[in-house]
Amino acid sequence: MGSVFLEDRDKMIKEKLCKLREAMDNEGIHCYLIPTSDYHDSEYVSAFFKVREYFSGFTGSAGTLVVTKTEAALFTDGRYFIQAEQELSGTEIKLMRMGETGVPTIREYIAESLKEGETLGFDGRVVKAQQAADYENMVAEKKGKIVWDKDLASSVWENRPPLVHKPVYLLSETYSGESCAKKLKRVREAIEQAGAEVHILTSLDDIAWLCNLRGNDVEYCPVVLSFAVIDKERMLLFADTKEMTAISEEIGGYLEDNHITLLPYEDFYPYVAGLGQRKILLSLERCSYALKKSLEKQAEIIDKPNPTELMKAVKNETERDNLRKAHLKDGVAVTKFMYWLKTNMGKERITELTAAEKLEQLRKRQEHFIEPSFETISAYGSNGAIIHYSASPKQCAVLKPKGLFMVDSGGHYLEGSTDITRTFVLGEVTEEMKRHFTLVLRAMLNLKNTCFLYGCRGMNLDIKAREVLWEAGLDYKHGTGHGVGYLLNVHEGPNSFRWKNLGDKLESAVLEEGMVTTDEPGIYIEGSHGIRIENELLCRKGEMNEYGQFMYFEDLTYVPIDLDGVEPKLMEAKEVRWLNEYHSRVFDKLSPYFEGDELVWLKEATRAI
Amino acid sequence: MGSVFLEDRDKMIKEKLCKLREAMDNEGIHCYLIPTSDYHDSEYVSAFFKVREYFSGFTGSAGTLVVTKTEAALFTDGRYFIQAEQELSGTEIKLMRMGETGVPTIREYIAESLKEGETLGFDGRVVKAQQAADYENMVAEKKGKIVWDKDLASSVWENRPPLVHKPVYLLSETYSGESCAKKLKRVREAIEQAGAEVHILTSLDDIAWLCNLRGNDVEYCPVVLSFAVIDKERMLLFADTKEMTAISEEIGGYLEDNHITLLPYEDFYPYVAGLGQRKILLSLERCSYALKKSLEKQAEIIDKPNPTELMKAVKNETERDNLRKAHLKDGVAVTKFMYWLKTNMGKERITELTAAEKLEQLRKRQEHFIEPSFETISAYGSNGAIIHYSASPKQCAVLKPKGLFMVDSGGHYLEGSTDITRTFVLGEVTEEMKRHFTLVLRAMLNLKNTCFLYGCRGMNLDIKAREVLWEAGLDYKHGTGHGVGYLLNVHEGPNSFRWKNLGDKLESAVLEEGMVTTDEPGIYIEGSHGIRIENELLCRKGEMNEYGQFMYFEDLTYVPIDLDGVEPKLMEAKEVRWLNEYHSRVFDKLSPYFEGDELVWLKEATRAI
Repeated sequence: MGSVFLEDRDKMIKEKLCKLREAMDNEGIHCYLIPTSDYHDSEYVSAFFKVREYFSGFTGSAGTLVVTKTEAALFTDGRYFIQAEQELSGTEIKLMRMGETGVPTIREYIAESLKEGETLGFDGRVVKAQQAADYENMVAEKKGKIVWDKDLASSVWENRPPLVHKPVYLLSETYSGESCAKKLKRVREAIEQAGAEVHILTSLDDIAWLCNLRGNDVEYCPVVLSFAVIDKERMLLFADTKEMTAISEEIGGYLEDNHITLLPYEDFYPYVAGLGQRKILLSLERCSYALKKSLEKQAEIIDKPNPTELMKAVKNETERDNLRKAHLKDGVAVTKFMYWLKTNMGKERITELTAAEKLEQLRKRQEHFIEPSFETISAYGSNGAIIHYSASPKQCAVLKPKGLFMVDSGGHYLEGSTDITRTFVLGEVTEEMKRHFTLVLRAMLNLKNTCFLYGCRGMNLDIKAREVLWEAGLDYKHGTGHGVGYLLNVHEGPNSFRWKNLGDKLESAVLEEGMVTTDEPGIYIEGSHGIRIENELLCRKGEMNEYGQFMYFEDLTYVPIDLDGVEPKLMEAKEVRWLNEYHSRVFDKLSPYFEGDELVWLKEATRAI
Repeated sequence: MGSVFLEDRDKMIKEKLCKLREAMDNEGIHCYLIPTSDYHDSEYVSAFFKVREYFSGFTGSAGTLVVTKTEAALFTDGRYFIQAEQELSGTEIKLMRMGETGVPTIREYIAESLKEGETLGFDGRVVKAQQAADYENMVAEKKGKIVWDKDLASSVWENRPPLVHKPVYLLSETYSGESCAKKLKRVREAIEQAGAEVHILTSLDDIAWLCNLRGNDVEYCPVVLSFAVIDKERMLLFADTKEMTAISEEIGGYLEDNHITLLPYEDFYPYVAGLGQRKILLSLERCSYALKKSLEKQAEIIDKPNPTELMKAVKNETERDNLRKAHLKDGVAVTKFMYWLKTNMGKERITELTAAEKLEQLRKRQEHFIEPSFETISAYGSNGAIIHYSASPKQCAVLKPKGLFMVDSGGHYLEGSTDITRTFVLGEVTEEMKRHFTLVLRAMLNLKNTCFLYGCRGMNLDIKAREVLWEAGLDYKHGTGHGVGYLLNVHEGPNSFRWKNLGDKLESAVLEEGMVTTDEPGIYIEGSHGIRIENELLCRKGEMNEYGQFMYFEDLTYVPIDLDGVEPKLMEAKEVRWLNEYHSRVFDKLSPYFEGDELVWLKEATRAI
């Protein structure tokens, strides 16, 4: 990056913050909070909602900006420390490394900044109800107030991109495995069991799963920008009426068949304001402060997790069969990419971006591929140490025939979504890199081969991955794994592998048969290298005896682990056996799709060590 | 047990329940609940409080009896299923195996039994506030009511033993490591930090720890039956004034020096009733329903864990040094017991009871030994499968030179409390027994040798013990470990090793340096054998680097593991290394206290395998 560009950027950030502070002055706001969220608590947000990025220049997918009259601070987690440091350098914005000793929480920082009687502001539609409740108490103690019905970005942000409403399509039962009618029936049973009359659903993946509809309104998330209100007879779907009816007669008829009434997206908040004295099942954990404020005046809120959350996490038999197919296709693409990379290294010019493009081309050749399931992390050498690194034309390394290259990528297929990381050895590597590669591999193998009693949560199992790193005085500052949606969000709750709660995330759920979770430990050495190896695991029932129901994991991902990075002497006997057994299965599954030199290479790449 | 005896017992239970039902009739109570508790939420209770045992005949340390006009049901957990089945057989009392599929919870059972408008009764002083709140809601739904101010046992139980107030003594700073004045200062800081004016403490171990006083009012628990009320200037100690002032002038002066006012035990509830509008720090988790009801009418309750809970769990440097001494003395006693057992087996008649007596004699020879820290579990052969088995003159096996003999025991010393389990091979054992012995040993070794980042809870680490059993399709129906008090309760929170919450127990706490936790996995095969191996572990700080503070466990327990039960072929290389290293340290520590044949035997018992 040239320094002229950097200066330009710093100047722009300065101007934007200046305008924001003017708007704050006009509204009597002393401290303004900008989280990374949309009206639906989505993890990734469409361009319209990228307010935090607009004002700070920090492009990571998670972070909160707090602006006062004299200061600006960006809070983000361990995944983004290195990236944020680079992107914020030169600006007035202070980086707050969440979770590190001595770093205040967002709440503590605001409490420190606000003087007695001052006002905290934010857009209540993009702040979660529970977080805001926490701020409410703090502001009340200071005899201050909260302004939550002002989106200051709307007046300050020139040329703000519009809300996106892309075409909508129907996911047939061949892929979903359960009709919308059956899913609605299950949800209505849950509403009744909770003692409620109405259920309000604002999370986009829940709505898409429930209706068996898919769209493309959030980058990499095939969801439809919408709100849903479900009662005993009908479901109201607040979405873009034009697009939805425009695409096909089919969807109109389908909605009618399922007693779903289509209403304009922007009518949701006015509708809710007039709901009246109803008993409403609502997840306060997931809903916005604005929605809670609107409802609590008139209705009785029954606060429980969205019933769809657990339902969609437990993949049905059809989804499981489809996922095996999707991962096989994805495995073929990634393995062909590995072949191309390992055989062309040093022969042609390959950059982080051209490599990622090559991988996408190979995925596109697979039937029913729709789009990448998230932005590919293609990180060479020391860039691999930036946990959620993103190469760009401005910042993009050229691959050399030495060191390590990490690629974390995935695809959406009609048969489901994938998420896989492999780290490739491009030539000479140091002894330390090989030791670290082997440690990460051992961590991954130990977790995926664990056997446990039903009732375990990810929190019980996380140490299975982390322990070999801890023994070596190492760790990674991210969870070991996350749930994955079916042609939906690549990060999906309630299952996960983590050893403690990060930020406001809840404890991980009991692992149920049919849940899909990633297993992705890593080692990141700043300025040197990054290694992550990731498979997706399907939770399955094993033996049942007097002690209970035993559970195990089935591999969904079948792609070779680069043996050039493995030091067998540093592995335990059972770990070597697990690796060889895995590679033998990789060969059996993939070899029908390989021939000639590629097949010879595959045999070698999956050899027993 | 003769059948005549059994018939007598069954008749007595019948008569007692009949009288209880008459009392219920008189008070208009339809369902009466009898937990196992005293006025202080103690785990073990003195004779006066053994109401559940009196009415049911079940002698286990945990269980709740629910009596309706037509039914009686005893709820207990996995540790006691076999014992309760034996003790309840022939009576009308149904055994409810808590946690098993299809078994209702106590709340569900009562909800099922109570008809609309009926009355639930219990003594509110022995029922926890939070449990009762749960019953309150359920009874309210049924438009019924709760009678909580009647102890029906007081009228029905003839010759009920009186409340115990034994002599009280002072634990000097040589043993406690911190003066009462300093502890009170820390507690007062916590009271202020919680925004409270007064702290009410009803748990006996907390009060004993805070005052550096010890007594003997609960069997095996050197505590003083008392309540405490602490404000900024004074502490009121409601205890038996006669005993306490009678023992020594010293304690009277000591209490005055620390601004502690001694008041009669029975004045506590009347005093609390007149407390008025104060802000009271109180752990609702630990306080009785009667206390909560009495306070909530007049005062503001600030519900937080007792500050003393965490303070006493983290042993100070003096306590740690003392504990090492206590465990060394205890180790000498248990190892001499092992020598006696292994060399005299088959030569003299040894029963479960005489063996336990021999062990107690050996402990008594150690300086500063006070009493056993709990009732010794001395269980031969299939009795070992009864997790909390208790031998009695009526039911006591004779040891034979074959099979396995499990002894779980401990001692209170001025230098702290111990808890240790060893399983001994008395002669020929089956291949399965040896396999199980080796599995339990591996489980114990894997947990105690784990290395982890600060922030881990027992819940994260439990699998380190359990995984080798799970791999073999086995499990044990109890936690892997519990905290241990210092010359106090042998079961002490908030630290523990467990993989899920049992009953109403809370999630285990973050493991802090200075916490002591047992590591005691087991295998129990009904009708055949039981194996448990238990060491106590002291949590210590290890390396600190950019990833955080690493932690490890220091062994407190040094007693040989019976190598006759170990099959090295079934162990991993590192496990064999850990065992040999442990045995080498056992020899180094114990050998100065052994000579002649005993020393030769010790060398052999701790040999490398």
